[in-house]
Amino acid sequence: MSGPVLAESVRYADDGVVEILDRRVYPFEVSWVRCRTSEDVAVAIERMVTQSTGPLFAATAGMVLGAREARGDGPREAAARLRAAGARLIATRPTNNHIRDAVHAVLAATVGEDGDPGGEGTGDDPGRLTGEGRARLAGEELVAAVEAAARAHKDAYRARNAALGEHAASLLDDGTRVLTHCWADAFLIATVRAAQAAGRRLEFVCTETRPYLQGARLTAAALVEMGYRPTLITDGMVAAVLSDGLADVVLTGADRVTLDGHVVNKVGTLGVALAAHAFGVPFYALIDAPDPQAPTAADVVIEQRDGDEVLHALGRRTAAEGVTGYYPAFDVTPPHLVTGIVTESGVHRPGTFK
Amino acid sequence: MSGPVLAESVRYADDGVVEILDRRVYPFEVSWVRCRTSEDVAVAIERMVTQSTGPLFAATAGMVLGAREARGDGPREAAARLRAAGARLIATRPTNNHIRDAVHAVLAATVGEDGDPGGEGTGDDPGRLTGEGRARLAGEELVAAVEAAARAHKDAYRARNAALGEHAASLLDDGTRVLTHCWADAFLIATVRAAQAAGRRLEFVCTETRPYLQGARLTAAALVEMGYRPTLITDGMVAAVLSDGLADVVLTGADRVTLDGHVVNKVGTLGVALAAHAFGVPFYALIDAPDPQAPTAADVVIEQRDGDEVLHALGRRTAAEGVTGYYPAFDVTPPHLVTGIVTESGVHRPGTFK
Repeated sequence: MSGPVLAESVRYADDGVVEILDRRVYPFEVSWVRCRTSEDVAVAIERMVTQSTGPLFAATAGMVLGAREARGDGPREAAARLRAAGARLIATRPTNNHIRDAVHAVLAATVGEDGDPGGEGTGDDPGRLTGEGRARLAGEELVAAVEAAARAHKDAYRARNAALGEHAASLLDDGTRVLTHCWADAFLIATVRAAQAAGRRLEFVCTETRPYLQGARLTAAALVEMGYRPTLITDGMVAAVLSDGLADVVLTGADRVTLDGHVVNKVGTLGVALAAHAFGVPFYALIDAPDPQAPTAADVVIEQRDGDEVLHALGRRTAAEGVTGYYPAFDVTPPHLVTGIVTESGVHRPGTFK
Repeated sequence: MSGPVLAESVRYADDGVVEILDRRVYPFEVSWVRCRTSEDVAVAIERMVTQSTGPLFAATAGMVLGAREARGDGPREAAARLRAAGARLIATRPTNNHIRDAVHAVLAATVGEDGDPGGEGTGDDPGRLTGEGRARLAGEELVAAVEAAARAHKDAYRARNAALGEHAASLLDDGTRVLTHCWADAFLIATVRAAQAAGRRLEFVCTETRPYLQGARLTAAALVEMGYRPTLITDGMVAAVLSDGLADVVLTGADRVTLDGHVVNKVGTLGVALAAHAFGVPFYALIDAPDPQAPTAADVVIEQRDGDEVLHALGRRTAAEGVTGYYPAFDVTPPHLVTGIVTESGVHRPGTFK
């Protein structure tokens, strides 16, 4: 299915190099950062070349590059190298669990995790190789296995996303005015596709989402490509817009949802949810699934990014000299502000996950 | 008293031209827009060369220029010309009542208002000329009277501000961490001066305040000049900062406060107040006095500015093509979210004004 440029923002070039769409400058420049090694991919993720659900695809590609780097190694060395590449990718950004899950999926299906007993399959994962199978993997065989595991992880993610989109679209009547914050990426694209397939018209209000302006650039560009004329507001205007009745529902993505229903998402989401709650507008968070490894918000690390990013817009200084920027990249919205969490399995009241 | 550059941002040049500090580019450029006529002043206010409490000073200067333009007129024509200049200045921006009050103060003290009976003083304003006095004013005498009235209005405003600053500072214990939104201008300067005179240390968190970045530029620059090292956040980070306990009190200016305690201020204030309320942080609005002509929020016109301003930062395009910007310049915070309104006469519970 064709779609916005952002729907396919990590790709393999003919020469085997991984190319990642540079979301820091899109759509003003359509520029792809070329990554020859898994370390290049890790650096690109750290530097926000890609974000939102982009790192999932970048991480699977990083694992493929890691396997290729291990081509000349014996099985044991190759496994160690691939696990190290995975650990490096996971260490890039702590808050979203997509990278962690992608790395673990690839490792589990190929060389196993660090500290894995290795001698036997766990029984709960049919795609997982037994210790004997893993011990054999090296060279081109390892590369092929990692490529297959990466593809399987991406395909499974896309299928879960499509299901999520159906559930989210079921919340949106014809003519609904949706306010969204930051860039909900694959979740939003899937929702729009499902709504369009059902023939429902939507309108969008996007926050610009400083400091990176993901809303002004990415959400806006993707929605325009999908046929809309979004209204753009600054992050400070959300409460005024909701107070004035200019949106019917708030939909945002989530970088992580805890089992007890806390929504961890791009900083600003908490303020959006507070305003939605105050003015009786439903607030839904979109995520493929809650994180079984995060029972509550204390289990999620909130990434602090370089405060200097707050002092600039598109590389140009916006702040007086002498100030210090502060940049918590995410915030935590408590369950009582969340109307529902939309996952691949349906629309859930927060805190009802097991 | 010396102070930040912004404390004296409208001045008369030696050649009689009115110079207004261009707040759109300050502090990156220290540039003064030169106004030769009252119309030039009106255009400067419309174009946001000055804002916050700056238009009060610009409007008094505009009236002085209007009087000079009427130098060659007889008394009746001069009065009509001055009233028209005042009406033009008032029409520039509708939400803040500073311009309206400044124009009316100058007219009342010199040629009278449009439709004024003119034959007798009202008795409740000792500075007001009787009809006979007004009828005589023309030429240099009119110019001198307008200059005196303008000076008196500014001096009275500064005295009220200093009183407001004392009351606001009384709320701030030593070491208080203040979060402020946009640029509270003379109110904030007076508060800081009073706190400093009382030997109290303060810390500041400023929102950048898109789209014009008044917080990142004006508040930040003025606080740095006054000896602080403010922390800067984007507008979307307020809820996270207050949720994390990183500020003890919120202080903002107000462009208008209604008699029943609604606070009309730079868009974003409502979201700040919602977050403060949610996390138990006191929220105070600073204004010299509530507006006796605004019993409630329905009596205040909320200015809608050009939505294209949302699509740019410092003149550079920040948004994808195909979107439409929406820019309500102010929002309305209801009394139940307001801990107190600090005026020249003290700290008031909202809604207790008569």
